[in-house]
Amino acid sequence: MINPNDEELVFLPLGGAGEIGMNFNVYGFGSDIEKKWVVVDCGVVFGREGQTPGVDLIMPDISYLAELRKDVLGLVLTHAHEDHIGAIPYLWPMLRCPVYATAFTAELVRNKLADAGLEKQCPIQIVPLGGHIDMGPFAIDFISITHSIPEPNALAITTPLGTVVHTGDWKLDPEPLVGELTDATRLRQLGDGGVLALVCDSTNALAQGHSGSEAKVRRSIDELILGLDGRVAVTAFASNVARLDTIAKAASASGREICLVGRSMHRIIAAARASGYLKDFPAVISEDDAAQLPARHILYLVTGSQGEPRAALSRIAQGQHPTVSLGPGDTVIFSSRIIPGNELAIFALHNQLAALGVEILTEQDHFVHVSGHPYRDELSEMYRWVRPRISVPVHGELRHMAEHARLARALQVPEAVVLANGQMLRLAPGKAEIIDEVPSGRLCLDGRVLVREGEGMARQRRAMSFAGLIAVTLVLDAKGKVRAEPAIFLEGIPDEVRGPVRAAVQETLRRHNPKKADEQALGEAVRRSARKAAQSVWDKKPVTRVEVVWV
Amino acid sequence: MINPNDEELVFLPLGGAGEIGMNFNVYGFGSDIEKKWVVVDCGVVFGREGQTPGVDLIMPDISYLAELRKDVLGLVLTHAHEDHIGAIPYLWPMLRCPVYATAFTAELVRNKLADAGLEKQCPIQIVPLGGHIDMGPFAIDFISITHSIPEPNALAITTPLGTVVHTGDWKLDPEPLVGELTDATRLRQLGDGGVLALVCDSTNALAQGHSGSEAKVRRSIDELILGLDGRVAVTAFASNVARLDTIAKAASASGREICLVGRSMHRIIAAARASGYLKDFPAVISEDDAAQLPARHILYLVTGSQGEPRAALSRIAQGQHPTVSLGPGDTVIFSSRIIPGNELAIFALHNQLAALGVEILTEQDHFVHVSGHPYRDELSEMYRWVRPRISVPVHGELRHMAEHARLARALQVPEAVVLANGQMLRLAPGKAEIIDEVPSGRLCLDGRVLVREGEGMARQRRAMSFAGLIAVTLVLDAKGKVRAEPAIFLEGIPDEVRGPVRAAVQETLRRHNPKKADEQALGEAVRRSARKAAQSVWDKKPVTRVEVVWV
Repeated sequence: MINPNDEELVFLPLGGAGEIGMNFNVYGFGSDIEKKWVVVDCGVVFGREGQTPGVDLIMPDISYLAELRKDVLGLVLTHAHEDHIGAIPYLWPMLRCPVYATAFTAELVRNKLADAGLEKQCPIQIVPLGGHIDMGPFAIDFISITHSIPEPNALAITTPLGTVVHTGDWKLDPEPLVGELTDATRLRQLGDGGVLALVCDSTNALAQGHSGSEAKVRRSIDELILGLDGRVAVTAFASNVARLDTIAKAASASGREICLVGRSMHRIIAAARASGYLKDFPAVISEDDAAQLPARHILYLVTGSQGEPRAALSRIAQGQHPTVSLGPGDTVIFSSRIIPGNELAIFALHNQLAALGVEILTEQDHFVHVSGHPYRDELSEMYRWVRPRISVPVHGELRHMAEHARLARALQVPEAVVLANGQMLRLAPGKAEIIDEVPSGRLCLDGRVLVREGEGMARQRRAMSFAGLIAVTLVLDAKGKVRAEPAIFLEGIPDEVRGPVRAAVQETLRRHNPKKADEQALGEAVRRSARKAAQSVWDKKPVTRVEVVWV
Repeated sequence: MINPNDEELVFLPLGGAGEIGMNFNVYGFGSDIEKKWVVVDCGVVFGREGQTPGVDLIMPDISYLAELRKDVLGLVLTHAHEDHIGAIPYLWPMLRCPVYATAFTAELVRNKLADAGLEKQCPIQIVPLGGHIDMGPFAIDFISITHSIPEPNALAITTPLGTVVHTGDWKLDPEPLVGELTDATRLRQLGDGGVLALVCDSTNALAQGHSGSEAKVRRSIDELILGLDGRVAVTAFASNVARLDTIAKAASASGREICLVGRSMHRIIAAARASGYLKDFPAVISEDDAAQLPARHILYLVTGSQGEPRAALSRIAQGQHPTVSLGPGDTVIFSSRIIPGNELAIFALHNQLAALGVEILTEQDHFVHVSGHPYRDELSEMYRWVRPRISVPVHGELRHMAEHARLARALQVPEAVVLANGQMLRLAPGKAEIIDEVPSGRLCLDGRVLVREGEGMARQRRAMSFAGLIAVTLVLDAKGKVRAEPAIFLEGIPDEVRGPVRAAVQETLRRHNPKKADEQALGEAVRRSARKAAQSVWDKKPVTRVEVVWV
């Protein structure tokens, strides 16, 4: 038995366990009654029309932690991807704790805070690469690792009850091109000293082998671009600074000027330069200057690899970009992968480009991309270095986390626990055990309002998107006499439904002999009859509302 | 110059050019003034929530041809996939022409017609494999080919101006396991005699190499299932009868009884048997009997490989199936591919299965599937056999058709024309030329109503799914006096919008001094003010409707 006054170390994912993105990891240390908390990362995912129409961003519901905010010691950021920092403008105001990040990450977070008017309220503490923070019972070391963005960090979180290695997003790139190598020595030293738990990226746990190196992509892209005539446009994730550098240098080597198209390209390159990267990045030219150059001498580096409708590449493909146009003889290279769920948008973009006569090269047919997440060989390497007692897969859907846990057990890790968001795992003392299930969920940014996913208005909108809406206003006098034809709105419903719905409403009114006291029953009777009439004609049940106005 | 009285041969895709599915190909022969028409295939695609919420099926708008229906000589079906026959119950009534198909296809079409109560009105003429039909100026030969369903046929359509080879869906499977081999001799003979045009499947024009054989999948699945313990469930496209046979025999060989789960499995196997296939298919047992057997002795063949929410596998994964349950130690094999756009639904299904502790095997990690469409090596072989003067890519998105045309040109086909739906291509006489653009488009089956895609109610529903709806009823008397509080419906909109909208409506009424003659201007003023108020609070513009009731 554990005494409630005994200290314990717990891990609590509020986002990122059982889904890609929206990472929000909480560590707690203290007694059952009072704990201090540290948060690692604070990310978003993007809404999808098919599931959450009208929702731009989705982020974790952190109300459980917000109530404990006086004991939240800090928010530590591993790196600057949106799924690790994107929720800060929305969720940080619920915590108002210190924020820690390395310089490049801090630069991008500051941009975000400035957009939200929060930069004064939320100062960021810069941690050097390989640096250290002490926060109450937590001693946190930043350990350089590789990923697909500058300055990714694993964290060694040491407490009186042991050390947790929290990987963040990572891969083992022997030649990352920009930034540090993975500090394998430090990870091995931690393993030698004994690691309680490894909380580790699961994204590619289904992929055999090794994710490959940015340097190999560079050699391939160099050669590819050298062989192309006509205009070349390359789209890549803007945050992959090494890839941008690769593409820019390949352009220079093949006698092409580089033109950046899309706001996030400019933003990331500025942030990278401000943090001391890209010192030999070739000079870029403006879109207007680019438009003057012969096709053979230009390379556009453009945003929009995921088919985002408002991004530069979609506008180019639709012939709606103010300065960039592509046609027969030109080539677009997708130096990126397809994020699951974006297939149809990306293929629609390919089709638009094909209609212009543009040739399309992708990772399906050319070696133009490597993943930033560890394949199984890399995961195995990490486990060999760190040798944790407990494996806690995070950053992945359940299918990835389950396979990651299976791999960890095969590597003889004594315990492997797959968590859902909101499950609190006691890491020490004793055997790893889920000791609590706290409120969790997803918040949707809907317009400028944050609402819980699948509830209230979003649910109503989804229902209307299937079967439309009928809204009926009855106008009665105090004696229950019908004083005017009911006003009937049909929205998203075929015209042939109107007559039967009106007839049903009138018939119900005739039968009902309405009284004011009876308003609710009358409304319900009218609602049912209208809905049933629609269904009989159309085979669908619209959302149906009725209101009575007494004159 | 071509005289309008001269005869010409034209090809007109009304569906399937520039999209996967919904194939509807029209051939016309005659003068500019009067032609006879033959239709090849009549397919649907399924609606998607993200694009067409509330729409079950999408099919081509054939109103152009419906007006000419007295000159439509027949509908010829190449094979029984939904994207080639699924629109018959909805579109055949607009044509009412004879329908021609081989026995297995006819059996499945009859099922469809019976469901729609049309079997008496629409008799189907059975054509033997390798058979021949004469229809006015068209002489049509059925040529056996291989695909992923029994009885796929290419058609040789001979007219006084030349022969067109229309491939339908195909691949070159040296061991298709069920049904005939590709009649390469006949295709070569046609090539020797001179082929005007090849109208050909483009689905896999981006894929290098060869699609592979069902026989190789059989060897792999045999071995795989032999090595499994626990319950095994395999999901595959029900129409792939050879695959079902493979799975059933692998079950028998590993000492497992076979149980079919899902209506379409039963339906297809019955249709295959009725047409003389599957003579040695193992006996199947009922779901109730299967539930009594030890885990090691059962294999379920289940519907739902695409994550369809109402199909058997989804219900099993959610623990909602009445007789089948899976858990730790059990395995689900997806002997299928992911149809683009279904990724998230399928991954959600994987996650549900992972949550049950089930192991998931897919074509990503095991050799359990081959495509039914020709890869580039197979396309090249077909072009070597047929040697057409004109290549007309169909059955694919633009990106596939453009690449197919590029390949055809590389194979020295003199002309290759990429068409959009509705473009009429003159194949002869003279050089291939697009001579007309006729009305085309997509019809959505919405409830039981057919509506044009993106118009009217579907568009309204999509708009409401983003930003909800405000419906306002004003109650005024003949003098323009407000007789009651306006009734305001807000649907799919946050509560905080209500107050500002009500205030804006009242303010507008106050200012407007309404008169009956002025109803439209008043309604518009109220509509604008309500919408603007919503936007100021919420950053979104709801669909907004206003009606005035005069008492």
